[in-house]
Amino acid sequence: MTDPLRPGATIGILGGGQLGRMLSVAAARLGFRSHIFDPGANPPAGEVAAQVTTAPWDDEAALAAFADSVDVVTYEFENIPTATLDILQRHHPIRPGREALRISQDRLTEKTFLQGLGLKTAPYADISYLASLQAALRDIGTPAILKTRRFGYDGKGQARLDSIDDAAHAHAAMQGAPAILEGFVAFSHEVSVIAARGLQGDVACFDPGENVHRDGILHTTTVPARLTPGQRSDAILLAANILNALDYVGVLGVELFVTSDGLIVNEIAPRVHNSGHWTQNGCAVDQFEQHIRAVVGWPLGDGHRHADVVMENLIGTDIDRVATLAAEPDTALHLYGKAETKPGRKMGHVNRIRRLS
Amino acid sequence: MTDPLRPGATIGILGGGQLGRMLSVAAARLGFRSHIFDPGANPPAGEVAAQVTTAPWDDEAALAAFADSVDVVTYEFENIPTATLDILQRHHPIRPGREALRISQDRLTEKTFLQGLGLKTAPYADISYLASLQAALRDIGTPAILKTRRFGYDGKGQARLDSIDDAAHAHAAMQGAPAILEGFVAFSHEVSVIAARGLQGDVACFDPGENVHRDGILHTTTVPARLTPGQRSDAILLAANILNALDYVGVLGVELFVTSDGLIVNEIAPRVHNSGHWTQNGCAVDQFEQHIRAVVGWPLGDGHRHADVVMENLIGTDIDRVATLAAEPDTALHLYGKAETKPGRKMGHVNRIRRLS
Repeated sequence: MTDPLRPGATIGILGGGQLGRMLSVAAARLGFRSHIFDPGANPPAGEVAAQVTTAPWDDEAALAAFADSVDVVTYEFENIPTATLDILQRHHPIRPGREALRISQDRLTEKTFLQGLGLKTAPYADISYLASLQAALRDIGTPAILKTRRFGYDGKGQARLDSIDDAAHAHAAMQGAPAILEGFVAFSHEVSVIAARGLQGDVACFDPGENVHRDGILHTTTVPARLTPGQRSDAILLAANILNALDYVGVLGVELFVTSDGLIVNEIAPRVHNSGHWTQNGCAVDQFEQHIRAVVGWPLGDGHRHADVVMENLIGTDIDRVATLAAEPDTALHLYGKAETKPGRKMGHVNRIRRLS
Repeated sequence: MTDPLRPGATIGILGGGQLGRMLSVAAARLGFRSHIFDPGANPPAGEVAAQVTTAPWDDEAALAAFADSVDVVTYEFENIPTATLDILQRHHPIRPGREALRISQDRLTEKTFLQGLGLKTAPYADISYLASLQAALRDIGTPAILKTRRFGYDGKGQARLDSIDDAAHAHAAMQGAPAILEGFVAFSHEVSVIAARGLQGDVACFDPGENVHRDGILHTTTVPARLTPGQRSDAILLAANILNALDYVGVLGVELFVTSDGLIVNEIAPRVHNSGHWTQNGCAVDQFEQHIRAVVGWPLGDGHRHADVVMENLIGTDIDRVATLAAEPDTALHLYGKAETKPGRKMGHVNRIRRLS
């Protein structure tokens, strides 16, 4: 399929969390139907989707029926089992494509890919044994951080090492999973670029946002980010470089460390990204609609910002502040409809709208 | 129920057209579930709602089951049968309340109500017989417009009279339905105020928009409207006057003619209004969320505008322009997911975002 899909077509979305939920609303705004596939019952996205399938990732019959009912397949998270993708790909294109998933599912592969493009990353080493961890620590130094190569997010599957003595404990915490050691980067702040590439190879970027994390989870994104004009260009060019190398279709999040030596790529996410939520209230076409436009073969929005925005995540019991937040002027609430509040769980976010700077 | 509803509660929406669809999305953004009740199969709102009931307005069992599943009832259009409301009201509050519906369901009652508040309307007369039409035409003059008292919208159920000789033909066109004759008003332009009143009696208005109609259907709304500061105050004060008189809860649309003698009320609509769609891209809290906030007892948004907007309706085959519109910068598309295009049918709208004036 290379012709643009027309309104009325159905977009299959793998994963029914808050990102799937906001993708589904964006799809509806363009006249598309959404069909959510999620192993968990009552996914948040199901409340705003035309159709929901609740089935495990390895349920071949459910996957085939899902595929039959949609016109294109996309996803809200990168850790989809390869076998699932194999089944779906027999029916419909998966956008973004398999290469982006293959690379971003493994931190080691991702780092190698980025360095292959000539981009800077933190120093890293492949860790299979305690001995290789100890050797790598001598090479990279401390502090350093040991991460599972796969299935990590929001600081999960990570252990910080402040001296070589922490090696045994950190290695044990990985529970035998393949891991990567990353050296620390001396950076002044973190920014991210939410970039998109269309089916025809056109590229559009939103203005970079500046991210602050708390307890390993994104806390705020502020737009515009503190960047020199040169850094801003670099950020956008390197994002485009990544998109083109992957022959990418859709929205990609690129996290960058700002250092005195230039921009260092922290990680990439082949999907809409928490640090792009500000676009919902700052742009005519937000990151969710941009992603949908790309996967259905429509022209991309140009990423133009008509307001400054500060996005703040509502994590866990932050949701109890909703009554106060609802009364704040120029503040847009976005709640995810999650039934249960848990520590560290993303329950919603607010976008505080400011006059364009 | 006077306590605010909490996220996770369910809002029952009568009517599943585009207004119900956009109300449902706004409800989801605040963490609420929506349950749509509509007699027609596959209503546009159903594609973004947690639940849909397809049943006629007089299906008592379906209405009772619907009512049991929701925490509050609201509606997207004013012509809901009285008997339906009687059944639902046994279970849950209906917001906005019955009085607003009673008045706005009948053009004659509405005009009488508005004049009772000291507001100006077009000259009008109750028409039951051809003889009363002829007498009223002598009194009010021509041109004039004969309208059914009930169930009219978008220019339907209306006949224009340019001389007293048109009386018999126009009267026959009403097919015996009770009617009202309205004199023409010499106005320079039409504006509307989208006003809201909360459960505690708080009132908030969006900036008035200026409306242009084509073939009896809204074509564009431009914000800001051409109004003097005095006219702007008048518009907001009279909207608040109407809201308070009705002990109203929710969003109300007030259409006004701007004349050299001041503002004349054309009509009121006890619901979100086509001329308020611009708020989706100009305000942190749009008219749909404002309505939901009111009916769940939350604080209202303050109506503050952070951008100028020109809204254009996409009527009938306008939908064929989507590919061009999607490529326009600073233009937000909102399509309604309607399967079939018909002449005069509202298929979507665009909001063109401009820098705040």
